[in-house]
Amino acid sequence: MSFNTFGHLFRVTTWGESHGPALGATVDGCPPGVAIDAAAIQHWLDKRKPGQNKFTTQRKEPDEVKILSGTFDGLSTGTPIQLMIENTDQRSKDYGEIAQAFRPGHADITYHQKYGLRDYRGGGRSSARETAARVAAGGVARAALAMLAPQVKITGYMVQMGPRQIDRSRLDLAEVERNPFWCPDATAAADWAAYLDELRLSHNSVGAVIEVVAQGVPPGLGAPVYGKLDSDLASAMMSINAVKAVEIGEGMAAASLTGVENADEIRMGNDGPMYLSNHAGGILGGISTGQDVVVRFAVKPTSSILTPRRTITMSGEETELITKGRHDPCVGIRAVPVAEAMMACVILDHLLLDRGQTGGLRGRIG
Amino acid sequence: MSFNTFGHLFRVTTWGESHGPALGATVDGCPPGVAIDAAAIQHWLDKRKPGQNKFTTQRKEPDEVKILSGTFDGLSTGTPIQLMIENTDQRSKDYGEIAQAFRPGHADITYHQKYGLRDYRGGGRSSARETAARVAAGGVARAALAMLAPQVKITGYMVQMGPRQIDRSRLDLAEVERNPFWCPDATAAADWAAYLDELRLSHNSVGAVIEVVAQGVPPGLGAPVYGKLDSDLASAMMSINAVKAVEIGEGMAAASLTGVENADEIRMGNDGPMYLSNHAGGILGGISTGQDVVVRFAVKPTSSILTPRRTITMSGEETELITKGRHDPCVGIRAVPVAEAMMACVILDHLLLDRGQTGGLRGRIG
Amino acid sequence: MSFNTFGHLFRVTTWGESHGPALGATVDGCPPGVAIDAAAIQHWLDKRKPGQNKFTTQRKEPDEVKILSGTFDGLSTGTPIQLMIENTDQRSKDYGEIAQAFRPGHADITYHQKYGLRDYRGGGRSSARETAARVAAGGVARAALAMLAPQVKITGYMVQMGPRQIDRSRLDLAEVERNPFWCPDATAAADWAAYLDELRLSHNSVGAVIEVVAQGVPPGLGAPVYGKLDSDLASAMMSINAVKAVEIGEGMAAASLTGVENADEIRMGNDGPMYLSNHAGGILGGISTGQDVVVRFAVKPTSSILTPRRTITMSGEETELITKGRHDPCVGIRAVPVAEAMMACVILDHLLLDRGQTGGLRGRIG
Amino acid sequence: MSFNTFGHLFRVTTWGESHGPALGATVDGCPPGVAIDAAAIQHWLDKRKPGQNKFTTQRKEPDEVKILSGTFDGLSTGTPIQLMIENTDQRSKDYGEIAQAFRPGHADITYHQKYGLRDYRGGGRSSARETAARVAAGGVARAALAMLAPQVKITGYMVQMGPRQIDRSRLDLAEVERNPFWCPDATAAADWAAYLDELRLSHNSVGAVIEVVAQGVPPGLGAPVYGKLDSDLASAMMSINAVKAVEIGEGMAAASLTGVENADEIRMGNDGPMYLSNHAGGILGGISTGQDVVVRFAVKPTSSILTPRRTITMSGEETELITKGRHDPCVGIRAVPVAEAMMACVILDHLLLDRGQTGGLRGRIG
Repeated sequence: MSFNTFGHLFRVTTWGESHGPALGATVDGCPPGVAIDAAAIQHWLDKRKPGQNKFTTQRKEPDEVKILSGTFDGLSTGTPIQLMIENTDQRSKDYGEIAQAFRPGHADITYHQKYGLRDYRGGGRSSARETAARVAAGGVARAALAMLAPQVKITGYMVQMGPRQIDRSRLDLAEVERNPFWCPDATAAADWAAYLDELRLSHNSVGAVIEVVAQGVPPGLGAPVYGKLDSDLASAMMSINAVKAVEIGEGMAAASLTGVENADEIRMGNDGPMYLSNHAGGILGGISTGQDVVVRFAVKPTSSILTPRRTITMSGEETELITKGRHDPCVGIRAVPVAEAMMACVILDHLLLDRGQTGGLRGRIG
Repeated sequence: MSFNTFGHLFRVTTWGESHGPALGATVDGCPPGVAIDAAAIQHWLDKRKPGQNKFTTQRKEPDEVKILSGTFDGLSTGTPIQLMIENTDQRSKDYGEIAQAFRPGHADITYHQKYGLRDYRGGGRSSARETAARVAAGGVARAALAMLAPQVKITGYMVQMGPRQIDRSRLDLAEVERNPFWCPDATAAADWAAYLDELRLSHNSVGAVIEVVAQGVPPGLGAPVYGKLDSDLASAMMSINAVKAVEIGEGMAAASLTGVENADEIRMGNDGPMYLSNHAGGILGGISTGQDVVVRFAVKPTSSILTPRRTITMSGEETELITKGRHDPCVGIRAVPVAEAMMACVILDHLLLDRGQTGGLRGRIG
Repeated sequence: MSFNTFGHLFRVTTWGESHGPALGATVDGCPPGVAIDAAAIQHWLDKRKPGQNKFTTQRKEPDEVKILSGTFDGLSTGTPIQLMIENTDQRSKDYGEIAQAFRPGHADITYHQKYGLRDYRGGGRSSARETAARVAAGGVARAALAMLAPQVKITGYMVQMGPRQIDRSRLDLAEVERNPFWCPDATAAADWAAYLDELRLSHNSVGAVIEVVAQGVPPGLGAPVYGKLDSDLASAMMSINAVKAVEIGEGMAAASLTGVENADEIRMGNDGPMYLSNHAGGILGGISTGQDVVVRFAVKPTSSILTPRRTITMSGEETELITKGRHDPCVGIRAVPVAEAMMACVILDHLLLDRGQTGGLRGRIG
Repeated sequence: MSFNTFGHLFRVTTWGESHGPALGATVDGCPPGVAIDAAAIQHWLDKRKPGQNKFTTQRKEPDEVKILSGTFDGLSTGTPIQLMIENTDQRSKDYGEIAQAFRPGHADITYHQKYGLRDYRGGGRSSARETAARVAAGGVARAALAMLAPQVKITGYMVQMGPRQIDRSRLDLAEVERNPFWCPDATAAADWAAYLDELRLSHNSVGAVIEVVAQGVPPGLGAPVYGKLDSDLASAMMSINAVKAVEIGEGMAAASLTGVENADEIRMGNDGPMYLSNHAGGILGGISTGQDVVVRFAVKPTSSILTPRRTITMSGEETELITKGRHDPCVGIRAVPVAEAMMACVILDHLLLDRGQTGGLRGRIG
């Protein structure tokens, strides 16, 4: 494919299939001297780990990361960091039906058409298991940010499940880790639990909207015109399985606003420019303003459902298919730590790029 | 910046500022033997050209393209095609105020902070004039598609101005070229004309939603996992000035659907797979399905308005700013041909990539 | 570093250190449907394997390759192929001296200066052990060439050890695998054995010149102006440890020729153009002619010798250093399979690129 | 071609043909705040300009550079700098013969085979005129180096014409600008003048060896393993027209040395490490040591000669060809300023990369 890599200077190449011996990430471009250990990376993997509650896949994977290269005495050396996660719970089963038939809404049919063959076991490379490698790489990015820009704080949470949105007046980031949905609104979380249970029992699934906020991002990150911070974030989030839309700041709602409403007016604060609002989501002209960087994205409902759907087989026969197996009824839930990881990688990448390009120069104001 | 290039094999580098002597695009990777002349490219530039009616900037630019290299006897030679557009209507004026103050919602402040200096004349590199170069490059991409995949047809149109959406039951692509808004709904177009006039006279501006559809895209285009067709489209559209969100197929609405509703069921047609719906927007697992590729994006309202907004100056003083000049009250209008151009470039690029990677192999069905 | 990857469409990222748990190559962009098994790759690794005779390092490494991803039922799927080689013979020893002192001629001092820290065990990332990963990746490239261009045959051999050159009138490729030097001249091989033994016993080492020839390369490969086949080969060979010069065809000797002498005159053969000589080394204007592609490069003598050399320590003290350990007296020997691997990767990469760019079009002659 | 760009962060894309309206370079990634004017760039172009004496082509080109973008008030803004040189002396003539026949030693035949068509006027894109664009870009790189690393000094000169080498005991860089050959040995220059005159009159041409030295390069530049300073230099020099070999430091001669001879021993100087020799050419493990960076390369004799050579035509007929026109009898002469430009670009690029990757960190010694 030649396109299993993202990033400009901080470059992450993920590899591996759902049911192969292992998967992982080759992380190239981590600055030297970063304190990295497997435990710190494991922390983030555990957040994404399947089988933690009834709302995510029951596949039991320890997702234990091993660092095979790139560190010495606990510090990054500036050489590639190989992160490997062995697959342990690839149940042997009869793949007969999905080996022949294409699951609607999956990449089965497009991989077959493009490559002429496909690893049908668990979706192969198109499985969401690939995102475990992203989370591991994000752990490295977070460690580097902790050294280079310790004020940066990245938080993801779910703001909508199916048609049910959170109430932003109740938004409390402290809630996020207290429920299985990374939901910042305790009331909504309770509601979602009931709603999702019902969907699951009726052999259905549902979509979601995730929001990721990066606080403390310095102004000046982003490489116009085609490596803008927002275009890189859009690409990064859209590359996550099942994502169908990406918004920055106001997002789609910006279309409905007038210029008077949408202007983020500026006053002079103690430490420099102070914005009176953040419709822009912290990015102007593709460059960070110093405000919170706000990204939101929509995840489609899990395509693997126990309700029969019409499809065809490789030999061109029409059939109906039920996708058995251990699938998340709302795959958006596990996208939260993945999106945080992508945000960490993109911000670190642009921090390094900006350092290369401008030397971290900042034009004076005041 | 080092990031004024997009594309993998079909690579476009745009250059130039709003008020410099010229701007243009260096197009590298056009296949040899493509019939290219300035007139064909001019056709697309004329579509985007400013000053054509009262709803777009009154700057009068002929936007005449010159081909400086890369063709011989009317055919592309496989070498870089340099497209130059001279700026002719850079009015000399006193830039005093905006040379010092940062226009809210513009890249003035972030360019200043990042680069330590900025070309304040007309926004310099961050001006939407840069998109003329994209449209020219898109003309080359369309010419190459006409040779390699003549069935591909790309159409952009506006589906929402401010809060006012088209009625999809009235959608008629034949209408698109009949009104100044590229609106496929004649009734909506009339409504928008009145609405926009009112906004303009009240010194305000408004956002918009644009949809671009590519018909005839063969299945198999897209390079998973990080060069997916949808992530490349997201990046391409988000890189257009003022865009704040990108949707593929159902987009944000996918979050509200259930798996049963969202499944694009498949039957066997005469020429291969036939999908019963297109929630996916023609892309599964990052690879085209052969259905229409559907992208939508939101453009924020023009930040340059005649209503005073609060801001600061380079010396840190607080002030209010009115942005005079010749600005589009709905900058989304002129984004339509730009988005078509980006779509053409991305599809051509993936066609070349796929040819390189798989040799254009297609797995058999039936 | 962010630069542990080479190739454009066939992209190889190597990772790992001499004394870490493992090293390997992440191979991205292998076309789908290529028959790949570990045994075939192992064949090439065994060629490079250390400890096979007294003329190469006595480190005993099985260099057993494991394929962790990217194949299914013995065929490549078009997804990244992860090749892992575990390090098994990293002797625990006291690194005290070389942990502090910089070995002259090694990357010890430059890695320290650049990165602020270094993995001093066996040279870390700068060790020639990294080349095992290249050989493994080259095995994948050869398998892909076997499918796409089975007429391509790549052969490397040593043409000079220290000042002692082969006699080209005796050049016999059948000899290459019959002696420990990959020498195509049996008489020279016998001479070199005695010469190298003497050098080894006198605690010295020596340089070498390697030649690699690719037969059967189709005309038209190479991407002018900055991805020329020869500039890519120069970069590939120069990236091999200890290489100090790269020649194409006549190489340095071309400087001494006149235009009359150097012209590769052309006649019409049965299958197209027939060249009467090959001073060009099979490349004109950066594009292959269809003749043999001929590359030669010089390897400097192993810097690790038992003769004391003057150097300094990290604390700035002057000292003398003997480099103990298991070092090749002529590191050029083991560069032969490495260079073959690089040649295979570069040719495959340009084959894919050309297919993407021109569709494999060839202008008619006759 | 998609490969008309070189560099990682400082990226140069050249465009244009010998006989088209113009050629130039799109320079992306120049840091902001660099003082750049056309006159400074013109200085370097004038060095390369044809028609200055009887030893170079008599084509009269002013090679006047125009800056079309990327600067404001005489300073770079961080946006792409477009450098355009208009072609003025494309003599109209009958190209009949070379439009049909392939000149031996030229890219005529390979371009035809690869692209199916070619611009035969003056060699089109494969003409050495393309190097004017490199020299212009090199002028930008030199300006940036003057700001970021003013101690860097780059000097190119010719050390061999045909078989005639300079006497290194007479090497005097002050001589370089005093003769038409950029020869640092006045006696050799006189000898070469007579020699080249004779060759020219006998309708022949000859090769050359050029050496380029960069003094003042800080230690730590270079991105192992595949973006090594030496592999990037090898690629850059090999991409220049007619180059057939590249050497670093000892180059090919390193093969003949023993490890004892080749060791660059280190002592402690006042300002850090002090090397007692420079066999390595200032690069260890792909990273600069702080010593002079020394590159040498061989240029083949001009293929365009007035002596008839055998060749074929597009229709497959055998013929003989004399290449009339205004050709350099020793094309190596004009390669000197081109190689200096490439050196400047590569060093600046690695300076920016290193700043991005390590923040310009340097490990302490002493």
